[in-house]
Formats: sequence, C-alpha cells, structure tokens
Amino acid sequence: MKKNMSLQTSRRTLLQAGLAGLGVAAAAPAQTANGQPADDYITPAMRTPGRPFTAYGMPASYEAGVKRIVTPPGISPGTGVSRTPLEMLEGIITPSGLHYERHHNGVPDIDPAAHRLAIHGLVKTPLEFSMDALMRYPRISRMHFMECGGNSGANSGPTPSQQTAGGIHGLLSCSEWTGVALGPLLDEAGVMPTGTWLLAESGDAAGLSRSVPLAEAHAQGILALFQNGERLRPEQGYPVRLLMPGWEGNLNIKWLHRLKVTTGPMMTKDETSKYTQLQADGRARQFNFLMPVKSVITRPSGGMTMQGAGYYEISGVAWSGHGAIAKVEVSRDSGATWVAAEMPGPVLPKCLTRFRLPWDWDGKTTVLMSRATDDAGNVQPVRSVWIAQFKPGQGYQNNSIQSWQVGADNSVKNTYV
Amino acid sequence: MKKNMSLQTSRRTLLQAGLAGLGVAAAAPAQTANGQPADDYITPAMRTPGRPFTAYGMPASYEAGVKRIVTPPGISPGTGVSRTPLEMLEGIITPSGLHYERHHNGVPDIDPAAHRLAIHGLVKTPLEFSMDALMRYPRISRMHFMECGGNSGANSGPTPSQQTAGGIHGLLSCSEWTGVALGPLLDEAGVMPTGTWLLAESGDAAGLSRSVPLAEAHAQGILALFQNGERLRPEQGYPVRLLMPGWEGNLNIKWLHRLKVTTGPMMTKDETSKYTQLQADGRARQFNFLMPVKSVITRPSGGMTMQGAGYYEISGVAWSGHGAIAKVEVSRDSGATWVAAEMPGPVLPKCLTRFRLPWDWDGKTTVLMSRATDDAGNVQPVRSVWIAQFKPGQGYQNNSIQSWQVGADNSVKNTYV
Repeated sequence: MKKNMSLQTSRRTLLQAGLAGLGVAAAAPAQTANGQPADDYITPAMRTPGRPFTAYGMPASYEAGVKRIVTPPGISPGTGVSRTPLEMLEGIITPSGLHYERHHNGVPDIDPAAHRLAIHGLVKTPLEFSMDALMRYPRISRMHFMECGGNSGANSGPTPSQQTAGGIHGLLSCSEWTGVALGPLLDEAGVMPTGTWLLAESGDAAGLSRSVPLAEAHAQGILALFQNGERLRPEQGYPVRLLMPGWEGNLNIKWLHRLKVTTGPMMTKDETSKYTQLQADGRARQFNFLMPVKSVITRPSGGMTMQGAGYYEISGVAWSGHGAIAKVEVSRDSGATWVAAEMPGPVLPKCLTRFRLPWDWDGKTTVLMSRATDDAGNVQPVRSVWIAQFKPGQGYQNNSIQSWQVGADNSVKNTYV
Repeated sequence: MKKNMSLQTSRRTLLQAGLAGLGVAAAAPAQTANGQPADDYITPAMRTPGRPFTAYGMPASYEAGVKRIVTPPGISPGTGVSRTPLEMLEGIITPSGLHYERHHNGVPDIDPAAHRLAIHGLVKTPLEFSMDALMRYPRISRMHFMECGGNSGANSGPTPSQQTAGGIHGLLSCSEWTGVALGPLLDEAGVMPTGTWLLAESGDAAGLSRSVPLAEAHAQGILALFQNGERLRPEQGYPVRLLMPGWEGNLNIKWLHRLKVTTGPMMTKDETSKYTQLQADGRARQFNFLMPVKSVITRPSGGMTMQGAGYYEISGVAWSGHGAIAKVEVSRDSGATWVAAEMPGPVLPKCLTRFRLPWDWDGKTTVLMSRATDDAGNVQPVRSVWIAQFKPGQGYQNNSIQSWQVGADNSVKNTYV
C-alpha cells in the first residue's frame, strides 16, 4: 500500500465544504486491486492486547508536548505563571490539567474537611461555612473564561515578542464552573446598611486579597466548587474560589477563606502596587474589573510552520467580560479587508467562543488579524490606539488586535502593524 | 471561633433563593467581638509556601475517591467496562480522566505518526489519511454525550441492583469533541452508486467493527481528533475515532483505521452476537442506532445518606440521541405528581442537559423519579412498559425511568415501582 501523504486538491471535497478552489490536505491509494486493504494494514496494535482499565485517565504519551508553559519563578519559588498552550487546543473547554496558573506563593495543600469560609465584618450574623455546608446550597453551572489581568502583556513591549499564541496569550482558559450563588449567603449573614464593599482574601501564604463592590458581588458572585465536572483543581483554588464572571483573573480569589463586608475598598497591596493601569496622563486606572473584548487566532499562529500555498482553516477564540461575542472579523490581507468568521457555537456570555474561517493562501507574505465585537458594542482596538492610552510598558488588560505575519518562507511571526 | 456546622434555617436566604419555607445548610459565628476573624483563622496553609507550578495538573489528593468504577475483567484482561461516577460530578462536561470506558481487548498504544485511516471498498479512489493530513481539514466542535448500548442494564434484572447512580448509569459521559466532517472525505474518495453502507473497523486487537448506513455517515459522521480541548484520550480512541452523535456508543468506533464502503451491512460479530435487542415476540431488533431519551437523578441517588428533613437540591442529567431535551419532569412523591425541573442551560442537541429542582423533604419515606422528554416528542417510559417489550434480561438501551427510594432512615436505594 502506498503511504504517500502529499497534498492534493479534490474539487468535489472542496465544493462540499464550500471551499471550492482551495487546496486541501488529501491522501493516497489505500487498497490492493481486489478492494481489500493490503496485508500490512494489520498493524502491530491489532496483534497486541491493550493495557487494562484505569481509575483516572491521562493523555497519550505521544502528547507529552501538550503542556502548560511554565515561566521560571522570579523572586521566589511559587511566584509566577504557567500558560495554557492555546495553539495546541481546540473548541472552547480548556482541559483542567492545562488551565493557566498565576500564583504568588505556590499552590497550598488545603484539606477541605478543615477549610472554612467566613463572612464577617459589617454583617448582623458573622457566619462560617464548612465545605459540606456549602455543598447543601442550590448550585449554578456556567461556562466562563478566566483571564489574568497581565495576559498578553508581552505585546505591550517595544518589539514583537516571538512566542507562540499560548506564550503571549495563554493566561487564558475556559471551564464549566459549578458553585453556589454568593448573594443568598450574604443575605443570610445580613449585610448592614454601611456595608458597601467586600474584602475577599485567599487562604494561601500570599494572602492575595481584593476589594469588590458589594452590589456586584451580591448579584454576580459565585462560590465555585467544581470545574469541568469534578471538584476544583488545587491550582484553581481548591476547595473553593470566588468566581466573578468576566472579571480580571485575580479578583476570582482562589482558596477563598474569608469575605469581610467593609465601608469601602481596602486598598490592598494587590490593587495598589499591582493590577492598576498607569495612563499616559500620569493617573492610574484602578478597580478596572471587567476584562475587555478580545480575540486571538490560534491557528496559524506564532512559531508554526506553514506547508506552502493552499487551503488552511484559520481558527481562534474570542471572549469578553462584558457579555457574549457578537462577531469576529478576520483580515487575511494585512488589514486591507475584513470578513466575518463563522461562530458555529455555542456562543455563551463571558465564555470563549470558537471562530473559524477558510483561507486559500497564495503563498505570499501577509498578515492575519482577528477583531472581536461583543454584544455591548465594544470592539477590539488596534495596537497603536491601545498603547497610546498608557505610559510605556503598561501591560495590564492589553486587548489590542494580535497580528501574525505569515511569511513566504512558511514562518509565522508576531508582528506590530 | 465556634466551628458548629449544624443546620439552620435562614428565611431571608430562602426567600432570596426562591426557597422560602425550606431548611438550608447554614453556618456558625465567625469572628471575635471586634469584627476580626479570630487568630486561629490564620490556617497552616497561610504559613507555608505552596508547591510550585506543574506542566499538567491533577485533581487534589483529597479527591482520590472520585474515580472510574472499574468492573473487574471477565473472560479476558482488557474486556469490560469502567463507569463514570455520575453522582460525584456536576454540570455537563465529564472530565476526560473520568470518561467511561468499554474495551473488548484493552487500550492499544497507537503512534499517531504511524497511524493511517483508509477509505476503501466501493469508491473510485481508495484513500489513506495520515493524522497530519486529517489535521488540515476544516474542523467542527460540538458537545455530545456518549453512552454505551449496555448502560443501565442492571435495571433490566429481576430485582433492583443496589449501586450508585454511576454504578448503574455510568456508561455515560459528555465531552466537547472536535474533528473533521466525514462527508467531504467520502466525496473525495468518490463513493460508487452501489455503495450504500460503511464498515467501520477499529485498529485495536479486538477489531470491533460496525456497519453504518452511508447516507447517515455522510451527513452526520465526524472523525473526532480532540476531546475537551486536547487530543483524544487513548481510552476514547486516540488518535482518531468515528463520532456518530447520539448513536449507541459502540458505533463510535475508536482507534478507527478503516472505513469500507459496501453494498449492505456486514453482519459483524459486534452487531449480531451483541448489541441487538431480543423482543418478547422472539424477534430481535438490530441496527437500532439512536440512544433513546433518558434521564437520571444523580443527587440524591443510590448509596447516599440523607441528613434528615429539610432543604435539598434535586439534580441530574438528561439526554437523547434524537435531539435536544425539551423538558424534565420530577416526581418527589412516588409518581403521584410531577413538576418541571429547571434547565438553566446550555441545552444542546445530543448533549447532557443538567436539571435542578428544590425539594423540601419532610423526612418521610418517598420515591424520587425523573422523566425526560426530547424535542422530537419522545418520553421516557416507566420500567414495566419498557421491560414488557423484551425477553427477560434484555439489557440494551434501557431508558426506563430510574426510581430512587429515599427512606426515613436517611438511606437512598434503587427501587422498582
């Protein structure tokens, strides 16, 4: 049997797929003259009993390269990030094993039987919840993205960082979260009239804490207990995290151990020294909670090697903290023209949305860009417009359009246009 | 700080949650007189740096009990099943590590670089696809359930099997699948006019094979390459499986290595000796592809221990091979009355749908049941009606209503009503 895997064009296939005129990956003859597969088609795996059942499965050994991109710790062990390899993934769900991490003092080992969540401060009845108690409340399941405020910060630098899509934008993941609505628990404690903000504090050794307006915490907050069907992973806050859908990652306090009702923001270290945006006019934006509308083409993307002129599927993800994605436009000609990508769905609020668009590449150097619009009318800005708002190097909440230069030499590189 | 975790009732909480009059799990005082948490609220995890970053994350060690329910192999190693622990999970996505398994000769170790998928038989141009070639085609992402034809077979036995929800119904999982449409590949090979069926064969040592009508394979078939964002797990057919959304599990051929176009069904061992339903009249149903409409309450469910009278959330999953779930009705009084459960969504075709319903249990013995209806109008039958169709012990495609007896002694048991 011939094993030639060279590319061919089948006009019939392309017509079926609505891709007439494009070149598509195809295949080689697969049988002998009598219509049977050749004898060598009985593969080694068909002659060998397979391995037995496992209690908890893992990816194939051949996929060992599909892993989080760990940035070596800086000032102390456990301080840093690991990124989701977006360009190796598909769909909208991030496998929990590949969800991005941002830790300030590592991943704590918390026994859920001993862990308590307190609601205290300006409340009539301070309360303390065991995890078993939280499990008794009505639950909510929702698919939402999670994105670090510092995601895509590399694109705030003076020159284009030559990394993969995940290396630049991989502080971004998406899960089906299940938990308990925060509002009724606040009501159970009885918030006093002077209580207008919440301090949410993590039970790890960094004690990361953020101030959250009470009204929004009450209306939108979820105490997340499950992630993609199973209990939260340790890296995402086991046994319980605060989920503020669409908000900057660090506000979704992991390893949540207390919520204190206060009269105003507490100006914690994490909302003063960090996670503020220094504007060009010298003033800083603070409490800029919602992650802005954004998209990234994950295929083709930085570091990939093209296979010459012909058919490609352009695909990526779009998301917005303000709501659902209304459209994603893609330019395949360095921004000269834009066409709407397909969004086959599901298109859910504050959730990754997969987009796809066929592309007949002529093999010449060009630039691919995607531009998302959300249902609140927000549109991704071009990089120059976004950069002009801030002092040089300000890297938080960079949602400017990502441009990938696809070269006649088959390279794909990050570029600023 | 008091650590009393006894149950209380907060009427304000319950009003907020629309659950007035029910008892709900609540909590204990959590602070000292000055409004601060007590000193002992600084937990050991807050005094100890956490562990560093990992390339691929795993569940918390405290969740080691959340695992697949492996049935010991019968006639040979690698022949059997492992089930998804449905009652421990939430939402609709099954973590890939907990996806159910049904193997006939274990899990083969297949190198994707060497694996080929052939399309041959009654075609103009027999083709052979490398995995790299398949990766070049346009992709489709969809959330779909997968269910073994033998799922829930325990409920075909003469007496109620005392197992968990997962033990009885856990040959059921749900993933976001991404792959390539089969139709255009068949067109590329050029199916001859006499070609009306496909033989799909697995590349493992069991060589499981099934016959599929060509028109349906063309219209609905997907060559699945990704599962929940990452490449297919070995247990689910790595590197490629046939996905026929909503069809009986075994038709979704794993480790797919060939598709042969034929003039009719091939009457393979797997569709004659197995996966047929012997009717009461002595005739067998064969090629009964679509999984029927079904639901199961996962909480409370078999083997759980209730905590006395008071508020509970009843929750479970519903699904149908015929389309989307239109409604799920729940009876909390042994079938006397039925009320519509909430389906907060997403409600997707041929996908698990989560349902929820509050329940104020009076502490007396009763029976909980759920009854799903799909958008094609199919309704789950009661067990007696379903059983009457078949010879005793026929266990395939049992979609009869599951009844859980909740006892005054706080037990939850499988029961036939």
